[in-house]
Amino acid sequence: MNIEQNQIEKHNDALLTSHQRKISFLKEEWSHIDLENVIQKLVDFQIAIPSWALGTGGTRFGRFAITGGEPRTIEEKIEDVGLLHALNGASGAISLHIPWDIPQNAGALKSLAAGYGLKFDAMNSNTFQDQAGAAHSYKFGSLQNVNKAIRKQAIEHNIEVIKHGIALGSDALTVWLADGSCFPGQLNFRKAFENTLESLHEIYAALPEDWKMFVEYKAFEPNFYSTTVGDWGQSLLYASKLGKKAYTLVDLGHHLPNANIEQIVSLLLMEGKLGGFHFNDSKYGDDDLTAGSIKPYQLFLIFNELVEGVDAKGMNHAKDLGWMIDASHNVKDPLEDLLQSVEAIMIAYAQALLVDRKALNAAQDNNDVAKAQEILQNTFRSDLRALVAEARLRANAALSPINLYRELSVRQNLVKDRGLGTVATGL
Amino acid sequence: MNIEQNQIEKHNDALLTSHQRKISFLKEEWSHIDLENVIQKLVDFQIAIPSWALGTGGTRFGRFAITGGEPRTIEEKIEDVGLLHALNGASGAISLHIPWDIPQNAGALKSLAAGYGLKFDAMNSNTFQDQAGAAHSYKFGSLQNVNKAIRKQAIEHNIEVIKHGIALGSDALTVWLADGSCFPGQLNFRKAFENTLESLHEIYAALPEDWKMFVEYKAFEPNFYSTTVGDWGQSLLYASKLGKKAYTLVDLGHHLPNANIEQIVSLLLMEGKLGGFHFNDSKYGDDDLTAGSIKPYQLFLIFNELVEGVDAKGMNHAKDLGWMIDASHNVKDPLEDLLQSVEAIMIAYAQALLVDRKALNAAQDNNDVAKAQEILQNTFRSDLRALVAEARLRANAALSPINLYRELSVRQNLVKDRGLGTVATGL
Amino acid sequence: MNIEQNQIEKHNDALLTSHQRKISFLKEEWSHIDLENVIQKLVDFQIAIPSWALGTGGTRFGRFAITGGEPRTIEEKIEDVGLLHALNGASGAISLHIPWDIPQNAGALKSLAAGYGLKFDAMNSNTFQDQAGAAHSYKFGSLQNVNKAIRKQAIEHNIEVIKHGIALGSDALTVWLADGSCFPGQLNFRKAFENTLESLHEIYAALPEDWKMFVEYKAFEPNFYSTTVGDWGQSLLYASKLGKKAYTLVDLGHHLPNANIEQIVSLLLMEGKLGGFHFNDSKYGDDDLTAGSIKPYQLFLIFNELVEGVDAKGMNHAKDLGWMIDASHNVKDPLEDLLQSVEAIMIAYAQALLVDRKALNAAQDNNDVAKAQEILQNTFRSDLRALVAEARLRANAALSPINLYRELSVRQNLVKDRGLGTVATGL
Amino acid sequence: MNIEQNQIEKHNDALLTSHQRKISFLKEEWSHIDLENVIQKLVDFQIAIPSWALGTGGTRFGRFAITGGEPRTIEEKIEDVGLLHALNGASGAISLHIPWDIPQNAGALKSLAAGYGLKFDAMNSNTFQDQAGAAHSYKFGSLQNVNKAIRKQAIEHNIEVIKHGIALGSDALTVWLADGSCFPGQLNFRKAFENTLESLHEIYAALPEDWKMFVEYKAFEPNFYSTTVGDWGQSLLYASKLGKKAYTLVDLGHHLPNANIEQIVSLLLMEGKLGGFHFNDSKYGDDDLTAGSIKPYQLFLIFNELVEGVDAKGMNHAKDLGWMIDASHNVKDPLEDLLQSVEAIMIAYAQALLVDRKALNAAQDNNDVAKAQEILQNTFRSDLRALVAEARLRANAALSPINLYRELSVRQNLVKDRGLGTVATGL
Repeated sequence: MNIEQNQIEKHNDALLTSHQRKISFLKEEWSHIDLENVIQKLVDFQIAIPSWALGTGGTRFGRFAITGGEPRTIEEKIEDVGLLHALNGASGAISLHIPWDIPQNAGALKSLAAGYGLKFDAMNSNTFQDQAGAAHSYKFGSLQNVNKAIRKQAIEHNIEVIKHGIALGSDALTVWLADGSCFPGQLNFRKAFENTLESLHEIYAALPEDWKMFVEYKAFEPNFYSTTVGDWGQSLLYASKLGKKAYTLVDLGHHLPNANIEQIVSLLLMEGKLGGFHFNDSKYGDDDLTAGSIKPYQLFLIFNELVEGVDAKGMNHAKDLGWMIDASHNVKDPLEDLLQSVEAIMIAYAQALLVDRKALNAAQDNNDVAKAQEILQNTFRSDLRALVAEARLRANAALSPINLYRELSVRQNLVKDRGLGTVATGL
Repeated sequence: MNIEQNQIEKHNDALLTSHQRKISFLKEEWSHIDLENVIQKLVDFQIAIPSWALGTGGTRFGRFAITGGEPRTIEEKIEDVGLLHALNGASGAISLHIPWDIPQNAGALKSLAAGYGLKFDAMNSNTFQDQAGAAHSYKFGSLQNVNKAIRKQAIEHNIEVIKHGIALGSDALTVWLADGSCFPGQLNFRKAFENTLESLHEIYAALPEDWKMFVEYKAFEPNFYSTTVGDWGQSLLYASKLGKKAYTLVDLGHHLPNANIEQIVSLLLMEGKLGGFHFNDSKYGDDDLTAGSIKPYQLFLIFNELVEGVDAKGMNHAKDLGWMIDASHNVKDPLEDLLQSVEAIMIAYAQALLVDRKALNAAQDNNDVAKAQEILQNTFRSDLRALVAEARLRANAALSPINLYRELSVRQNLVKDRGLGTVATGL
Repeated sequence: MNIEQNQIEKHNDALLTSHQRKISFLKEEWSHIDLENVIQKLVDFQIAIPSWALGTGGTRFGRFAITGGEPRTIEEKIEDVGLLHALNGASGAISLHIPWDIPQNAGALKSLAAGYGLKFDAMNSNTFQDQAGAAHSYKFGSLQNVNKAIRKQAIEHNIEVIKHGIALGSDALTVWLADGSCFPGQLNFRKAFENTLESLHEIYAALPEDWKMFVEYKAFEPNFYSTTVGDWGQSLLYASKLGKKAYTLVDLGHHLPNANIEQIVSLLLMEGKLGGFHFNDSKYGDDDLTAGSIKPYQLFLIFNELVEGVDAKGMNHAKDLGWMIDASHNVKDPLEDLLQSVEAIMIAYAQALLVDRKALNAAQDNNDVAKAQEILQNTFRSDLRALVAEARLRANAALSPINLYRELSVRQNLVKDRGLGTVATGL
Repeated sequence: MNIEQNQIEKHNDALLTSHQRKISFLKEEWSHIDLENVIQKLVDFQIAIPSWALGTGGTRFGRFAITGGEPRTIEEKIEDVGLLHALNGASGAISLHIPWDIPQNAGALKSLAAGYGLKFDAMNSNTFQDQAGAAHSYKFGSLQNVNKAIRKQAIEHNIEVIKHGIALGSDALTVWLADGSCFPGQLNFRKAFENTLESLHEIYAALPEDWKMFVEYKAFEPNFYSTTVGDWGQSLLYASKLGKKAYTLVDLGHHLPNANIEQIVSLLLMEGKLGGFHFNDSKYGDDDLTAGSIKPYQLFLIFNELVEGVDAKGMNHAKDLGWMIDASHNVKDPLEDLLQSVEAIMIAYAQALLVDRKALNAAQDNNDVAKAQEILQNTFRSDLRALVAEARLRANAALSPINLYRELSVRQNLVKDRGLGTVATGL
């Protein structure tokens, strides 16, 4: 299914008066700010959609009734991301996962994606599951494994993923390792680290010069005693030892309870080692809920550090970090969930862009804590949704993506096209 | 120091045009809603200020340089709350703590308070500290103590607090017990519960018919292994066994990590046993930070359940539950901090009042999870500060309390009146 | 495969001298204690094995290479538990799960189980997964569902489980509900509670007079925002409203971080509402690790409260509470893991039996905290494994079950009998 | 008060037969191990006592009735540690804290300490409290402060502490910073890090060549939003940037919930950057409870990594790392509490020394997880208290320190000497 430009225009026209009123209101409220610059940054900001987030997810207790109309092939996944991008103008990239999405014809895929205005974001390898027909199991780890042959298999898989990525025009590899242990004594932590580092070195060596390697950390799950890339400190150790192409990737759900993620973000930027983000939200662990659905203020605070740190380093907001959603959609239509995630991220970004940094710096320099809080809360409490909508309008996307999605009965059309019982690859 | 009505009016006049613009905008945005009704509820809503929150707080590592101008007597504490109430029109009650605030002349205090438009909210006893000259120490607990004489001392203290409260026109007693244990084996949990229940029964018997007893729970601190009223389940057990005057009191900082407080609120309302609230915010434990400074969405979700549950029970928002701030102000001017807390609470309440309950019920009945989220986020993302300001305007209070507080140099005046080195009683 | 009595005797003979030396040592060390009584209690104590714990488990990321030789039928599951019971003499019951273990011929199964010395423990229903061919999905809950027809389906399933249990001679139903919500707004907490209570009433009505209903609670997972039986307070509310046959069931992994589980145990015993236990261990959430593998001191402290509370109530240790393991075996041979769990539980029980209660009571009455700690740590630090081994010896089981399991190549034999690729039903 | 050698001998004589029986039993059980070597390591192992742990502690809610007989001067603190060392032979060092313990006459103090067999361990600075008469307050941080003059004051304080330490023969400085923030926006994380690093560089420059600097981290408290040395990753960053004299110090209570501390220990050893330990135990936060009183298995697992890592690096167990207790004694006699902490630490160390590393390595190389667990649990479940007692016997200390402490009425004698109302400096 395709969304036609005239369908979007019709939708926008109906909302335009109301939208203009909001924009006018904001322009008066923020007359001291260059809102055009803010809107342009919102237009430029793109969040990659992972190919595995397009189907209904599950938990270790199983997967409930699926949504229907799920994509059956890479091509249909690209089609789905194309739908999202048509609706919100901010999902202009897809992140593939090998072996769930092995491209048969890279050229054709690139053309298909380009037709939707999509690029190929970071490639994702998978050594957290056993692959059918593989010689070795990752039950006791992949890059950390005590068995050199198993490490070798995992290394070669990653190198193969890089090759696929090169063919598709991607320029980054995300390495998320489930490696770790479930019981005290199972692992020698030091040797596990050293094996992992050695393995990463081999993969790093296969990386093109202009590529990045994202070393993702996670505190726990699926291993429940230790994880071999367990926190930002460990990831930074690996990335530092590997070299300048290696970076830390932050997934919001991969921390111990109560962690101050925004501080981690700030320090990684300081070190020049923040590579990118996996957005989602959570209350208990790696719950993989819709971004902004549980702790929207935290999301804003993270963006506040991102904007501050990226600007301090003279980096480009849209290009110098990798932005991706990584969530699981157990009880919502995956496409609606992704639209909600992107919306929440864009709002948080807009809020962060409007923070009065000069005043904030002054308050910090005076230890005026109440004032500093007022400054942050002022933008957070402001209703900036119209700015995000305006960015969409300028990108020829929909003023209200989720409403248009429902107006156009997109899901029902996908079911009609693909059937009810299709199941997308993923978790 | 007093804030004169003409000072407030002058402040308001300068902001009125801008305020009216915002109100007009909101009236158009929410034209389908009876905003007058919402504003009236905001006018009626009053949050009690605890007498111990008027001075600079500390931690177990000590107290840093104080703010200056802290109240030295109950009378000055009432004066401070009077200042807050003049500024925000929503702090029309003070909650006293015995023995930090033993009233010498109840009649005179009532008059003084009435002059500021203040009532006396719930009285607070203190058996979590040793009192100078007391026969017994609470080192090993008060109402739980294995020593009957110590329990007796604690019971009598509570009864004395009730008497003070009667004289002041209060109608509730808040019992927060630090009782518990620091090490496995220290306590027989069952006997501690039974001793505590027996002690509470004696206090309950001394309670006037129209009074309420609030049984506050807390997961940990200052005891670090067990607490004898440790969670809402335990508090509800006590309250149920005590009788219809006994209720559970929820302090937002008194839970284990990641607890779903809004669900607890809903269930306590269902059982008719929610008594009231202590507002604050926290990231790690009982951090006692400014309400809404860390998790404003959680604060909104709690109010969402409060409004839903109170309406379902046909209760009165402003009168049938006890609302109080309980925070510690270590790095901010306490009065500014309290103004920020009240503001955050009022905003959350306003957001909850605007939730489209009919649509939410329909979404819930259809398991339309994405829609339910849209409905809640729609009010949370709206900027309703002008509604709260309008309520203040109608209560003859300031459009921007914290700004007026600074414009009038309230703190500097208090320092001038009271001196720099005064230290208010409290933590 | 069967383990012959002479194989056990041969194994025991080889270890007997060493064992006797340890027992002699303990008899001298604990000469002031009636060790025979302790040993008899250890002999009598039986821990049920859940049918789903006999196969290799997995996580939401999938299941790694299986162990091989997993049971393919209920009969083979009973055979497996029979092997465990032959080895340790303490696994004399099996807990079945419907629909994973629908019995075709209850009489034959009872005979088969009796041949191994096994009883049928609590029956487990399953409304946390969709069943093939079922009319309705539990995606949005079962007993809590807003749709009455779905609640009805779940109620009927539970009643059917009771019927299977009656035929097998079981006398308890464990209801674990995954019901809850993933996002704010998804659920009306009060209505979810009321629907669940109403549903439980219907199931309760179908319960034979001498049966118990265990209402299990869990803080989170698979729902990641709220759970409708979320903590012991909620479970106790249900159990109290249901009636005297309803009890709370405690699973060690179902709490928020840092919860004091032993206090919960004590209070539930006080209320006469503790029904039973699901043993496992965890570091982060419901990790379902081997009992005693992470926090053995906590396991001891729980047993300390169990022994104290059960004795205070005049209850029977072995009969008046339900004891079951509930763990997932992702990286160990499931049978070895279960042997380790039972061993850890028996040791904790032995430690609790040896606590000098008179001295502990005296220390508590004197607030002698250091002494109380010494008393608990004295038994915990003692090496009581020989007492547990002696209980096995008297039950004609093996002195060292896990060693005999390996000596007899049990797993290899099971693989030979059943094949490498068999997969047991379960998670 | 002094404990005479003949008092110890008399005590030991009465217990000797029983002790010998236990030792004989252990020698048979562990006949394959060189127990003499283990005992010698236990003899050599010394744990420093911090001067502030000799008095009754408190919480932010105040301090309850004190124990009586608390040391009033540094000399009396040294006397107290001397008593502990006489009793357990394992507390041969004292760690001083400036300004609580400013030495007036370093030479005399050294002689006094030497008389008790005590050395001066790491010196502790204090910039987490305001000092009477200081020009500046640390309310908004010390080494991180935006105000250079305040940073300077804090730097100079640290340099003064080094000077005191040189005079006393210490060779390490522990820097624990409470620096951080309570509210979002209060701090620029990057600038706070850079200011802190710059300040640490100045202190580092004043460090003698053979000294170490321990950079201690803490997740939260007394700041409740961010801490500027918040986790091991941050501490390692500082230590790496500072140079080879700088190390990370691990305090067991300074982590987020559920952190795997033993893995952190292993990785810091791998990096050559583990400096030392602050021992205590906790259930919720920095509870500062007696070592081993809550999670003794975790304490063992930490020692397991220490022994493994220290041996792998060819380091000396007793000399190459700093060992110190850091606890607060709110409800126990501080000296009894310290005896219990040292005992728990020595037991954990003994257990770690007895781990069969060869077998463990083999199990790890075979991914034999069940076996690895058996190996660790085998030593943990063994009763090794007699080995620790034997080490004491050889050091002319008491077989049962806490019992002798009570037999000799040490506390009563201290009260007689010093009075009931004395309060030691500290928290």
